[in-house]
Order: sequence, then structure tokens, then C-alpha cells
Amino acid sequence: MMKAVLDARQSVHDPKHALLSGKVIQCREQPERIDVLHKAAVAAGCEFSPPRDHGRAPLAAIHSPEYLAFLETIHQRWSRLKDASNEVIPNIHPANRSCSYPTGPVGQAGYHQADTACPIAAGTWDAAYWSAQTALSAADLVMDGADAAYALCRPPGHHAFGDLAGGFCYLNNAAIAAQHFLMAGFRPAIMDIDVHHGNGTQGIFYDRDDILTVSIHGDPANFYPFFWGHAAERGTGRGLGYNLNIPLPFGTDDAAFLIALETALHRIKTNGSNVLVVSVGLDPHEDDPFEAFKVTTPGFARIGAAITALGLPALHVQEGGYLQPALGDNLTSFLRGVQRK
Amino acid sequence: MMKAVLDARQSVHDPKHALLSGKVIQCREQPERIDVLHKAAVAAGCEFSPPRDHGRAPLAAIHSPEYLAFLETIHQRWSRLKDASNEVIPNIHPANRSCSYPTGPVGQAGYHQADTACPIAAGTWDAAYWSAQTALSAADLVMDGADAAYALCRPPGHHAFGDLAGGFCYLNNAAIAAQHFLMAGFRPAIMDIDVHHGNGTQGIFYDRDDILTVSIHGDPANFYPFFWGHAAERGTGRGLGYNLNIPLPFGTDDAAFLIALETALHRIKTNGSNVLVVSVGLDPHEDDPFEAFKVTTPGFARIGAAITALGLPALHVQEGGYLQPALGDNLTSFLRGVQRK
Repeated sequence: MMKAVLDARQSVHDPKHALLSGKVIQCREQPERIDVLHKAAVAAGCEFSPPRDHGRAPLAAIHSPEYLAFLETIHQRWSRLKDASNEVIPNIHPANRSCSYPTGPVGQAGYHQADTACPIAAGTWDAAYWSAQTALSAADLVMDGADAAYALCRPPGHHAFGDLAGGFCYLNNAAIAAQHFLMAGFRPAIMDIDVHHGNGTQGIFYDRDDILTVSIHGDPANFYPFFWGHAAERGTGRGLGYNLNIPLPFGTDDAAFLIALETALHRIKTNGSNVLVVSVGLDPHEDDPFEAFKVTTPGFARIGAAITALGLPALHVQEGGYLQPALGDNLTSFLRGVQRK
Repeated sequence: MMKAVLDARQSVHDPKHALLSGKVIQCREQPERIDVLHKAAVAAGCEFSPPRDHGRAPLAAIHSPEYLAFLETIHQRWSRLKDASNEVIPNIHPANRSCSYPTGPVGQAGYHQADTACPIAAGTWDAAYWSAQTALSAADLVMDGADAAYALCRPPGHHAFGDLAGGFCYLNNAAIAAQHFLMAGFRPAIMDIDVHHGNGTQGIFYDRDDILTVSIHGDPANFYPFFWGHAAERGTGRGLGYNLNIPLPFGTDDAAFLIALETALHRIKTNGSNVLVVSVGLDPHEDDPFEAFKVTTPGFARIGAAITALGLPALHVQEGGYLQPALGDNLTSFLRGVQRK
């Protein structure tokens, strides 16, 4: 039996539109994912409970007050624009974050949304809030002695920076949980196995040496998030050397992924970390709609087992992995691997 | 009689789509503008000739080689993407320009296009190239002794930075012409009267004191380009004090605009500039679809006359002003004012 956390309010975020390659498409991060992942986690022996509300302080420890105010209020303010869409999708972006902070909704949307794949509708703030509380509450379970816990976070979080939404993500659940561990006296590391680089997580901790960030992902040369995720990005200032990126080519299979994972976990071991936050993406799978890697369903069990073999208590935070027939089986396989003794 | 320049190849850029307030709309910067503006300039006594090809050197004096390569090749490369739109429209943006330079088309689109209102199709590069040549050739007419010349540049240019397209603009025609004057020994100033802030022009010369940039425009607090155009933006380093922004409220009329113009022209006078590049936007008009200012058709004659009264030779470069019944009359009025003795 493995403890897990989920809150029903995470379903109210139901994004409809995204702009991809210049065309409007249906957003892939659908609320139906929750049902599939919930059943799959139960099948792997998870016992779910609802989160406790930790309030805003743990969110504000990671995200800027401007950004949190934006997320909570922008949909209402955007809706007052003439001919506005139902969802907030930015149409202009600053060339750098040091130019002026805009006061109006269109400017703020561009300032705080890195891309056109993080639409904000009426339910987005509530869902993101409870997704973060889910991660925090699952972290509590680990602090209370569980070897591992699963946070069914949705919307996901690892593309969200301190002041920037992006790629289906609004609040960085893994970062919020890692900071929660840090403030409780732990020395956390974040291991991101989503097929997309955890750019938000990297960005949040880029100049810090107290939370190690490691990510295995598709080479950003031609894959989302494009601007981040290269091996040369190693952190800055005190944080230099505390960010490890392992970009892998399209078509990466189980064997190649597991070799990279070995490198990643060894780095975490040498860091002296005593708790692990895993950003669990199921989109490295061979049938995921993003079509980057060729990890198999049994491969996820081996990945989960390798992480557990590191011997650290671990919080598993759900990130990506999209609707396709094997989505649930992939999570079941992963969580069974995590629990393998 | 006033000399003017136009090239037929500027019409091949025919943008279809833009994303505004989250919805796909028709791009307002239509090739039909050329016919309207051409007739209007002729009505004001302009005599048109085609541009001379100055090659790429004057473009590369303003724009980065990466950006020029992007503009010229991106449509072809984008078209090879699976399910790509006919026009290049970015879907992800870097949070700052110092992160890695992407190699693929989607990343490069986000890096080099500041917004979703600068779609790039097959004819965009050619049209932008000849629009810049038009500005350069009209600058030559002024260097050769004309009191004033009109460059019917389209696509417009003042939102284009050194490495960034935006707001219907690709190559910054006014900046390219000003640099052309500088390299011929002049001391140029740029006066931007478009209703939108000339953010690209400002950005290009922001750390320089050799080309003064002045802009009168709608307050960016709630108007495009949102991130730039505030009065506090005064230049940086050597350029501090060499950028003047005069943001004005929605509803600004002839009288208020002319008072701001007096301040702007006085700053140019104290600068010792000996040639003027005017970014001529006709969108301050009361019936322009952007609905910001309430300048009248006769008001444009007064604006043109005030600029001429400064006593400097002037290159008038077309920027914005969109299809509406008075568009042509506004240009005719402005150019008649320019020629008033």
C-alpha cells in the first residue's frame, strides 16, 4: 500500500484551446487524465486521501506575488476586454523581464505566460491551487515517515517559473514541495523524468545550491521548451553545478533512458540529498501523442525501481503524460516499480 | 512636387491571420493599403520612382545576421513541420534573450517574433526587403538635396527590433534609413507619430547617443506594445536622455497632439540634429480601427506643417494607419501640410 493525494477541485480546469505550429488545436492537458491516473494508481495499490490546505505561504515561497495575483484575477479581467476569447491566451511577449510591468490584462498575459499552451479559464486558479496543495500534503506524508507517496497533481507544474506559466503548467508543484521539504530541514533533490525539460523547475532554483535539479528529456534543439534544457545549462552563481540536464535524442528507448537515469541518480547521491521529489512524466512512452521517446510500459517499472533503489524517501509528483490507451498502464507500471522491494 | 519611392514587390506580403485577445482575426496590415496610400500621395503632389537596391549591408547595420537569416528562410523551414500553418506564428517565447539560441523553426519563431501579429508567409521577406530599400532610396533623395521625401514603406517597420519582428513589422525601415544618414555624415533624429509606440526603433538605439529617438503614442499601460513606451524609458548608458517618450491618453485630439509635438520637436532642435526621419503613422486618426486617438484629417496637415516648420530636411517613412474610408485623405492632408510654405 502506498499513500496518495488527490483533490476533486483539480478537475475544474478544463482548457480548450492552444496554438501549436500556428494553428489552434485542442489542448492536450485534459481533465479526463485525472480519472485515468486515479484508477491506475489504485490498481498499483495506492490509497488516496484529500489534501490539507497549507494556505498561500508555500506558494509564495516559490512564486512572485505579482504572478499569484495575475493567476487568480486575470480571467475575470480578461473577460472584460472587447471581443475577448473565453480563455486567456497571450498575444505579445516582452523581449526581457526587465522592461516595465504592464498594468492591463493583455500585457500581463504576455508577461506571465511563456507560450500559447497555458490557457487560463474560470477554473484554472482553483485547480492549480489544489494541485499545489496536493503536492504539499503528499510531501507531509513523506515527512511523516512514508518511504514514498504519490501526488496526483493536475494541472502539472514543471514548466512554471517563479513568475511565468507555460506548457499546461501554472504553479510548480514539485518546486513548492521541494521548498516545503527544505524548510522542514531536509536537503531535497528534484529528479524530472518527463519527456519535456523541467524548465520552470530549473529556472526557479537556477541560482541556488540548496535544491539540486536534474532532468532527463528530449533534446530541446527541436522540442519543447526549445530555449532551455541543454547540457550546458548548469546553474549560475552559487547554483553553478546544481542543475544537471541530460537531453536525449528522439527515439530514446528503455535501455538508453535507464543509462541516463543511472547518471542522474548518481549525481543526486553525491549531493547528499536526503529526500527526493520526482517529477513523473509518463510522456516518454512510445505511444504518447508528443512522439519523442520510445519508453515501454514495462520500462516505467524499471525506472520506478531504479529510483527507489537510490534508498531515499520519495515524493512522486505527477507531471505530463497524455490521453492514449497505455496512459493508465504506464502509471500502474511505474508505481509498482517504485514499490518493488 | 515632392519626391516619393515605392516598389511593387512590397505587395507580395499578404498576411492573413493574427491572434488578438486570444482569438484568430484577420491581420489588419493588408496590401490594399499600398494602393490607397499611393493614390493619396499622388493627390498630394508626390512623384514616385522605384528604389535602388542598396543590398544587405544597410540592413545588417541594424539587424542581427541571425535575425536576417531567420526572416529569409523561416517560412520554408516552418512549412516542413507536421501540420504547420501557412504562416509562421510563434507559440512559445523565451523569458529573456540570454538563454540559448534555438536551432529549430518553432523555437526560432518564438525567439524572433515578439507577438502573434507578425505572420511570415512566402512573400514576407521580399516585401520587407523592398520596403527597406524604399526607405533607403528616399533617404538618398534627401541627401541629394530634397527638402522632403516620402517612402511608401509597407510592411511598416517601427516595431521591429534588431532581432525581433512584431506588430506587422519585420525590418525597421526608419532605423535603417537613420543609420544610412548617420554613415553619410548626418546627425539624424527620428520622430515617430504613429499611435503605437515605436518600440523597435527605441530598442535599436536605446544605448546610443548618435541617433535621437522621439515618440508620441497611446499610453502603453493598456495599449500595444504594452511593455515599452513609458515616459520613464529614457535610454541607457551613453544613450540616457536620447530617447523621449510622450505617451498620451485615449481620446487625444488635434490640440493635445500638437502640444506634445511641440515638446518633441523642441527636443530635436536642442539635439542639433540636421536631418529628420519621420515615422508617419496615420492611425492616430479618429476613425482608425485601433480606436485610440481622435486626430482629424485636417489635424494631419497641421502635424505635417509643424514638422516642416522645424526647418530640417525630412524623410517621411510610412508606418501604420489601417483600412478605413479616411485613410487616403489623412495621408494627402499630412503630405500637403509637409509641403506648406
